[in-house]
Amino acid sequence: MPAFTDKTSAGHFFEDFRIGQTIRHATPRTITAGDVAIYNGLFGGRFAVQSADSFARAIGYPGAPVDDLLVFHVVFGKTVPDISLNAVANLGYADCRFLKAVYPGDTLSATSEVIGLKENSSRKTGVVYVRSRGFNQHGGCVLDYVRWVMVRKRDEAAATPGDTVPDLPKQVSADALGGSCPAIKGDAYDTVLAGSPHRFGDYQAGEKIDHVDGVTVEEAEHQIATRLYQNTARVHFNQFTESKGRFGRRLIYGGHVMSLARALSFNGLGNAFHVAAINGGRHVAPLFAGCTVFAWTEVLDTAEIAGRKDVGALRLRTIATKNQPCSNFPRMQGEDYDPAVILELDYWAVMVR
Amino acid sequence: MPAFTDKTSAGHFFEDFRIGQTIRHATPRTITAGDVAIYNGLFGGRFAVQSADSFARAIGYPGAPVDDLLVFHVVFGKTVPDISLNAVANLGYADCRFLKAVYPGDTLSATSEVIGLKENSSRKTGVVYVRSRGFNQHGGCVLDYVRWVMVRKRDEAAATPGDTVPDLPKQVSADALGGSCPAIKGDAYDTVLAGSPHRFGDYQAGEKIDHVDGVTVEEAEHQIATRLYQNTARVHFNQFTESKGRFGRRLIYGGHVMSLARALSFNGLGNAFHVAAINGGRHVAPLFAGCTVFAWTEVLDTAEIAGRKDVGALRLRTIATKNQPCSNFPRMQGEDYDPAVILELDYWAVMVR
Amino acid sequence: MPAFTDKTSAGHFFEDFRIGQTIRHATPRTITAGDVAIYNGLFGGRFAVQSADSFARAIGYPGAPVDDLLVFHVVFGKTVPDISLNAVANLGYADCRFLKAVYPGDTLSATSEVIGLKENSSRKTGVVYVRSRGFNQHGGCVLDYVRWVMVRKRDEAAATPGDTVPDLPKQVSADALGGSCPAIKGDAYDTVLAGSPHRFGDYQAGEKIDHVDGVTVEEAEHQIATRLYQNTARVHFNQFTESKGRFGRRLIYGGHVMSLARALSFNGLGNAFHVAAINGGRHVAPLFAGCTVFAWTEVLDTAEIAGRKDVGALRLRTIATKNQPCSNFPRMQGEDYDPAVILELDYWAVMVR
Repeated sequence: MPAFTDKTSAGHFFEDFRIGQTIRHATPRTITAGDVAIYNGLFGGRFAVQSADSFARAIGYPGAPVDDLLVFHVVFGKTVPDISLNAVANLGYADCRFLKAVYPGDTLSATSEVIGLKENSSRKTGVVYVRSRGFNQHGGCVLDYVRWVMVRKRDEAAATPGDTVPDLPKQVSADALGGSCPAIKGDAYDTVLAGSPHRFGDYQAGEKIDHVDGVTVEEAEHQIATRLYQNTARVHFNQFTESKGRFGRRLIYGGHVMSLARALSFNGLGNAFHVAAINGGRHVAPLFAGCTVFAWTEVLDTAEIAGRKDVGALRLRTIATKNQPCSNFPRMQGEDYDPAVILELDYWAVMVR
Repeated sequence: MPAFTDKTSAGHFFEDFRIGQTIRHATPRTITAGDVAIYNGLFGGRFAVQSADSFARAIGYPGAPVDDLLVFHVVFGKTVPDISLNAVANLGYADCRFLKAVYPGDTLSATSEVIGLKENSSRKTGVVYVRSRGFNQHGGCVLDYVRWVMVRKRDEAAATPGDTVPDLPKQVSADALGGSCPAIKGDAYDTVLAGSPHRFGDYQAGEKIDHVDGVTVEEAEHQIATRLYQNTARVHFNQFTESKGRFGRRLIYGGHVMSLARALSFNGLGNAFHVAAINGGRHVAPLFAGCTVFAWTEVLDTAEIAGRKDVGALRLRTIATKNQPCSNFPRMQGEDYDPAVILELDYWAVMVR
Repeated sequence: MPAFTDKTSAGHFFEDFRIGQTIRHATPRTITAGDVAIYNGLFGGRFAVQSADSFARAIGYPGAPVDDLLVFHVVFGKTVPDISLNAVANLGYADCRFLKAVYPGDTLSATSEVIGLKENSSRKTGVVYVRSRGFNQHGGCVLDYVRWVMVRKRDEAAATPGDTVPDLPKQVSADALGGSCPAIKGDAYDTVLAGSPHRFGDYQAGEKIDHVDGVTVEEAEHQIATRLYQNTARVHFNQFTESKGRFGRRLIYGGHVMSLARALSFNGLGNAFHVAAINGGRHVAPLFAGCTVFAWTEVLDTAEIAGRKDVGALRLRTIATKNQPCSNFPRMQGEDYDPAVILELDYWAVMVR
């Protein structure tokens, strides 16, 4: 009679990964109106396209699509047990494109391809680069992005393949945007119902927008969100273990900050109804329950999308802070980030023209 | 390159309002089975009509309708960015009528008409009276109510129009009730499944009912609820700012207390399945997380509804308290409210005969 | 004018029950995709059958079924106002069988039959044994189980019927399992998507599995869950009263621990997609918010199900602990339970062969 088991998964360690390896992730997930409602209850989004079937239909969608970041979080969540269960830190994102709209009833699954590996000089950890993709039940790719993450080695002495660092684009080309956004009937786009009179042409590069409001995060909220995505990263849920760890408390999933900042950004960017791509993102510092999150955005660029007269694209850099309002647009202090900054997210939003 | 922006909304101030002005509010909202489930998880309602499609269909509804107060909160939430973002206090409600049942899948939008304005003698604030209306996606009015709220002036010196105080009914006429309640098949109304043997004829004016149970409110709960309604009032969400404010903590949305009291009232009013109208309401004192809410109800009146033999109406005054059970029916202490009282709500409930 | 009312229910006391009495419980409940989403957000289940319509359909279900324990909790919740509102302790479960799969849109109702009564020697309390059954809207029995609970007497001096203690099976026969599990197309069961390579034949009696992860419970989480089930037991919600009680705090619904342990058990039992029966369960010690729950499982038995080549049954004993990881499989300390143990659950899970 065996007293022990090898049935549980301990996740992969750095030396387990190989360039070109493709991993099909577990647990396909049907996104329902229930998931959308919980996401609304947790973040309070007010973009009319995602909020109302009638608004979405009037402008050309078949119904209200699922919020882009909810799609991101669900796909990301699937990758965790295989990619980042033994991660020390989530280092960055690149070339993230939302390729097809997702609607309630769609089922998402995910794969990741290992595209880079670089052992750290300590030999205790290495950086794993993966291109992850989310698919709907018809096999259509809804999301494609690169993530790199620092992963522990199981055994410091283990041999690892030579270093391969992928060449990643600094930004997604504007002409690659909009695949998941149908042709928008501009005449039917009611800016009063949408909550903002400002259309694409009203924004210009260099413009800074303080989103004003702040929102305090509770433990129950981020746990519910992160479980909703079936993200199993242990640091978010286990106070017993974390109380003995580096921070003494549960760490909030970085994606939670992305969603909070996106919801706050409605005040100033009310017609930026669709996140089309993420050029890059950095979780600058951790967030803990009890902190209040604020955000501000700089318009980095404005771009037309080839062949489209209905919508344009704003390249935005949204900064989220903790316990510091953003009226003075905090970002850097010399060479370092302002200590209040927790997230820097560089993304393309589609806005009605 | 502009360093600042005027893209964000600071809400309206007292001097911005004009009598007769009509405001179309932003962010239409499709109410789904997901919203209903979250509402159930937050309040635990047990009225069978709203809980079970099969029960609702048996008695004459096409399916379980959305809880009346959830409809109220969603419509109310839409009015906040335009009416009460700069409010000091929500003063009262009148003439609130639920006119059409709302079902999952319906999309709600809202308008408000300014029907009264009265500057306060301090000249720092004024009272704004609005008639707000909620509509479904077919343009049908589902809810119509008057609210008055004390709003800050942007500029004390600003000129304001002369005072206009609307004449408001003390109560909704019983004959105006029931528009959102279909003809009920009394024979199919199973009082065992409904959880109470007491029908309309069993109640009489003057009767007092202690609802016995108490429920403690957590920060995560009221935040999730209030965001679900897309209510953006800042005092509910921002501990950073509120910690420096009058109470030192986040204030719970007054409507949260209404829903808690309504859910508690099931124990004693199990067949009062529909809130048909709110005659008046007063948020007597603030509620904070960690407090336990109790409630009791006095039957103020019983009324037949013209032309209806299926249901009658109970005029109810529900009192909610914090940290004080209601077995001795607390309400006034001399001229003042008992300090435990947080809500007084005068409403008409429809009950099966 | 009456000052008091008898409209509220105080629940039943021990002397109110009679052998053979059948109680139809109140508040039928339609289970929606919203309820499923909240359940996912609270427990983070990863069993692919319940998570994805596409996975469920591929293997023979008409769509993703509702999690078995969510069905259990909803049916259990209905019994509380009639059976255990005046309970001192929930003592045990036996002969619990999941008889029909439940899908979103189904409406559940419940009945209980009193099958045993035994007064305690103190004459202050007695044990009530009930067989409770849950039904769908077509009258089909979806769940059948026995529960016994210690209930207060209203009046110590009240006469009670003689003792009747039912003869209860120690376990559900394996051949009685699987009624709610359709014929599974084994070829279509994708173990990569399911998240575990281990099928029925890979498990053997005596095997112990540490589920590794821990999850900390927040007050808001267990309150939302327990209200979702319309479970009205007061100890879970009322801090005002509980602060003066035995533990000084709200007690978490024992079923919450069952669901946490079941979700944790995915790591090691990923293909045990269906709880077919509960042989017995014991809430060994109370759980409070702030504690972290861990779990481990011993395979007690493996059994074929008569006539089925698609699935087999594992008899599992899952132990949940608080604030103690389970790598050394804690259960007993001499004759007593290890003080960290809070739940022992003996159940049959169906696993693909």
